[in-house]
Amino acid sequence: MAFAYAGRLARVDLESGSVRKESIVEEDVQSWLLGSGLAAYLFSEELKPARSALDSASPLLVFAGLLTGTYAPAAARSSWCGRSPLTGIWNEANVGGHWGAQLRLAGFAGLIVTGWASSPVYLWIHDGEVEIREANHVWGQGTFETYRRLREETDPRAEVACIGPAGENLVRIAGVMTGGQEHNRAAARGGMGALMGSKNLKAIVVRGSDKPTYPDADHFRTVVKEANAAIRAKSEGMSLTGTAGGIPATEHYGDLPLKNWREGSWPEGAKAISGQTIRETIWTRDTRCFACPIGCGKAVEVTGGPYAGVWGEGPEYETLAGFGGNLLIDDLSALAAINVRCNDLGLDTISTSGVIAFAAEAMEKGIILPDDVKGLQLTWGAPEAVLTLVEWIAHRKSLGALLADGVRTAADVLGEEAESFAIHVKGMEVPYHDPRGFVSIGLNYATASRGACHLESLSYWRGYGAEWPGWQEGPYDRFASDESTVRLTIDFQDLMAVYNPLGLCKFIVKGGVGPSQTVDLVNAATGWDWTADDLMRVGERIFNLKRLINLRLGITGADDRLPRRFLAEPRPSGTAQGVLPDLDRMLPLYYEMRGWDEKGRPTPERLRELGWEA
Amino acid sequence: MAFAYAGRLARVDLESGSVRKESIVEEDVQSWLLGSGLAAYLFSEELKPARSALDSASPLLVFAGLLTGTYAPAAARSSWCGRSPLTGIWNEANVGGHWGAQLRLAGFAGLIVTGWASSPVYLWIHDGEVEIREANHVWGQGTFETYRRLREETDPRAEVACIGPAGENLVRIAGVMTGGQEHNRAAARGGMGALMGSKNLKAIVVRGSDKPTYPDADHFRTVVKEANAAIRAKSEGMSLTGTAGGIPATEHYGDLPLKNWREGSWPEGAKAISGQTIRETIWTRDTRCFACPIGCGKAVEVTGGPYAGVWGEGPEYETLAGFGGNLLIDDLSALAAINVRCNDLGLDTISTSGVIAFAAEAMEKGIILPDDVKGLQLTWGAPEAVLTLVEWIAHRKSLGALLADGVRTAADVLGEEAESFAIHVKGMEVPYHDPRGFVSIGLNYATASRGACHLESLSYWRGYGAEWPGWQEGPYDRFASDESTVRLTIDFQDLMAVYNPLGLCKFIVKGGVGPSQTVDLVNAATGWDWTADDLMRVGERIFNLKRLINLRLGITGADDRLPRRFLAEPRPSGTAQGVLPDLDRMLPLYYEMRGWDEKGRPTPERLRELGWEA
Repeated sequence: MAFAYAGRLARVDLESGSVRKESIVEEDVQSWLLGSGLAAYLFSEELKPARSALDSASPLLVFAGLLTGTYAPAAARSSWCGRSPLTGIWNEANVGGHWGAQLRLAGFAGLIVTGWASSPVYLWIHDGEVEIREANHVWGQGTFETYRRLREETDPRAEVACIGPAGENLVRIAGVMTGGQEHNRAAARGGMGALMGSKNLKAIVVRGSDKPTYPDADHFRTVVKEANAAIRAKSEGMSLTGTAGGIPATEHYGDLPLKNWREGSWPEGAKAISGQTIRETIWTRDTRCFACPIGCGKAVEVTGGPYAGVWGEGPEYETLAGFGGNLLIDDLSALAAINVRCNDLGLDTISTSGVIAFAAEAMEKGIILPDDVKGLQLTWGAPEAVLTLVEWIAHRKSLGALLADGVRTAADVLGEEAESFAIHVKGMEVPYHDPRGFVSIGLNYATASRGACHLESLSYWRGYGAEWPGWQEGPYDRFASDESTVRLTIDFQDLMAVYNPLGLCKFIVKGGVGPSQTVDLVNAATGWDWTADDLMRVGERIFNLKRLINLRLGITGADDRLPRRFLAEPRPSGTAQGVLPDLDRMLPLYYEMRGWDEKGRPTPERLRELGWEA
Repeated sequence: MAFAYAGRLARVDLESGSVRKESIVEEDVQSWLLGSGLAAYLFSEELKPARSALDSASPLLVFAGLLTGTYAPAAARSSWCGRSPLTGIWNEANVGGHWGAQLRLAGFAGLIVTGWASSPVYLWIHDGEVEIREANHVWGQGTFETYRRLREETDPRAEVACIGPAGENLVRIAGVMTGGQEHNRAAARGGMGALMGSKNLKAIVVRGSDKPTYPDADHFRTVVKEANAAIRAKSEGMSLTGTAGGIPATEHYGDLPLKNWREGSWPEGAKAISGQTIRETIWTRDTRCFACPIGCGKAVEVTGGPYAGVWGEGPEYETLAGFGGNLLIDDLSALAAINVRCNDLGLDTISTSGVIAFAAEAMEKGIILPDDVKGLQLTWGAPEAVLTLVEWIAHRKSLGALLADGVRTAADVLGEEAESFAIHVKGMEVPYHDPRGFVSIGLNYATASRGACHLESLSYWRGYGAEWPGWQEGPYDRFASDESTVRLTIDFQDLMAVYNPLGLCKFIVKGGVGPSQTVDLVNAATGWDWTADDLMRVGERIFNLKRLINLRLGITGADDRLPRRFLAEPRPSGTAQGVLPDLDRMLPLYYEMRGWDEKGRPTPERLRELGWEA
């Protein structure tokens, strides 16, 4: 059966062992697409939020995007959704690689997993079937070995998404890993690894051959070919040096975090850890997600020095910024080693580096003493201590037990002074673009659905020269806390809100694909006749739906904040020296433009306009 | 030790088990580059041609190109050189994938293998070491299983080049296979699989981490980035639908062989077996050679019908043209199955389809009778008989024994009538571009170093719209047997003659890289200061060197011929209807422009001009 754009979902209850397959309603897809859109709708409509994210009833919703599995540009992604063990609110961790396409080809657009299995299990999903299989033999194993073994016992070309020891130990900054050692891709953020761990669910293995059909195959091919050409023309840097190629530029723009967000400049360090340096030293080959025209992945291997023998998917921008810039480590081999360990243990490198930078500042300030933490000499530029702490976090050992639940929880324990440098929004450690370098990202962090999330806006791409024919043209001031920045933030949030539901990689947006080019791909794949405005409106609906979910889960406007450091401590040097975002000015404007009331709640009028029924 | 552009070679004698490593002389590299250039020089200078290709003394020279292992565009290739078991003259089989880069990274620019091992062995080359290892356990295995097992027992990221049963059985149309089932790449032509088989050499396994260094890394990165962008802009079709995407166009231009080169048109068939159809039906993912900006490889899987379960690297243009067009098989699943079997058995799909089309015509004409060949019903459009014959050829069984040594030998046995439709030049089965559609390819087939070889010219790309800034501009008539076609052929031969020596994929030339863009890459990688003319002159030197080798091996001007069918039987329909190349007119012009005498021998004057000493 070739998949239609709607498709089927499987409901798996691990407590009873039941598997129920059902068709997805086409009307729902027209309203919410697939991916995190339909997942949010189903979460909201059918599923009562459990008392906590790790309750047995707390569902894990895994959905491929609408275009995932087609050969639209980088239509590779799957969304791992539910209540975040880290933040307690809505979460969608998203991942590329090849897993999402294989889920779709295996006959399913999505899965909803509930219940705790009584002992470790994995799901083997192939050709329309869902098997719950025993997983004792891989429990305790790292993600690389798990990937290898589960492929061996299912299908050599199966795709494996799994957790490592971190997820098993309910570490709330644990992610879900796909692709094995060489092409590791993570559904990293918000602790979905812990959600799987709580269910005794080690892995979901997928494989199938249920090809998509297209209403007009020639037309689809033409549209994709033109889109690929346009994307490639604007992605040469990304193809050659990957996301890490952006490190020197982010340092220049005051966008790269330094020393837990306290320094302003680090040009030599940035050069040392850049994608350009990776290409010339430890790079071994490019890696590439399903149907991707860019190919930003860079596998690496360290062949000399203390980290000789380390190999695997290379560290990406966020990982280098977090462990490199924010911890002032300029040794690329060490950073590759840290990255590989995080991937194997199943840790989110953003949150992990965030909590470690927090801990380093706490030790610098004497709030944590070496004697309290087995003599660990955690300081700036000290990779060995970081590697130790990575192990400790995954195994909840010593200081790792404090950090395993994220920086908000750790600061709660350590007290008020520590809270002043706990860099998170709504419990999510802040990713590595600085609101003082691009103020729009600050407004986005404050309002994004999953807390501090760079992927819900990406508006700072304008500052790095990205352009879209007929969209976001006109003047742009990266430091202005004004109406134009609010508009930019909202527009980006609404566009980004359809990307996980579509299953497309956001890097194609960086490659020049705006709303009209995106809707062309959607129409060509589905036969719909949508306009760019239709698509943006669906984005706005989805964004508002997630806001409604979060309000039900206890969020209020008072949570739309930024860490004090971004509001009161400017970068001391560099091109963004002295700049602070004015959130107090932007937030009321944002609420107003969104059609939200002064407490950050969508008004009934706005919801009606967006198609909610009274 | 980071590799310099010269590097080391290893001489391995399988009879004595000796391994000798030596430095390559930098001056030789300036004269001949690496790859098939230096290989031809060493073959010519140091090694006496053995009495036959399969003699113990007959050397196998395997060389990476000068840029192989750098990240220059598609700098992936290795040349497998020596005396061809099929043609008896110079041969260079060339392959992409990842093997060549790993040879270089393992510390060697090349290998020269002589002698017969007393029992099956393989070479394990890693980090500057060469081990001769016992291979009884994989002897008799297909190339896919061999790839898997040898990786398992050496290194999970090792690259394996190996032979299948065809090479073991000294089938003279056996190739050398790399990359396993999913990303199979073949050093296919001229029977180098038989050369390895004669040596009891099952495989060469390579892996290393000896990174290249660059005289100016920033400059190299800039040059590569610009080249990649230019190539990608002209390669969108190749990226999306691969080499098979060209099938409908070749049918339109009268370039696609049909029914052993006797029909003129097949539009519906061409559409059915095209890359476009592959993309929409059996495609599973793209595959990609080392450092390639294009990514033309297409892995496939058949999920329904009699060939369900077949998977692997998808059939390429030549394979589809040979088994599809030339045997009139329009079932893509069957063609995928035939391709996968040829890859696993280790057969050259061009020569294999060529000998089978020859056999089909011989059966049509009653020269071979079904009773003589176990009742085999070999006819046009009959994939099952083709699959049977593929097995028979690899195992030298029944009719396969006759065909296993190529069409020239088979026609010798069958007699004069059969010779009239034995489509080869100098013993090499003709690849699948028709001299009646583009006459320049005819002149090239007649004069190319390894017999009928499309890769030594590729001038027909002009007819498909390829353009090069500042090179091959001006008028172009694909049917003209005139001076401009001779000039075009020579220019292309000289440029192509440096591509295997450089290790670059010729598809970047299709992507707009001409001599000046090529030399920019060379200079940026090496620090040389060559001009485009310098590079073309080296190409001409190498081409003449190979001519000198072939003259020593018994070739004369009388061998510079084309099969009678191309000279006397025009295509009966289509856009090339009625056209015949006028070889008698072009060949004397060619000799003259080359500076060769009337018997096709380079004159002493010309050789002196090209730098040969008196």
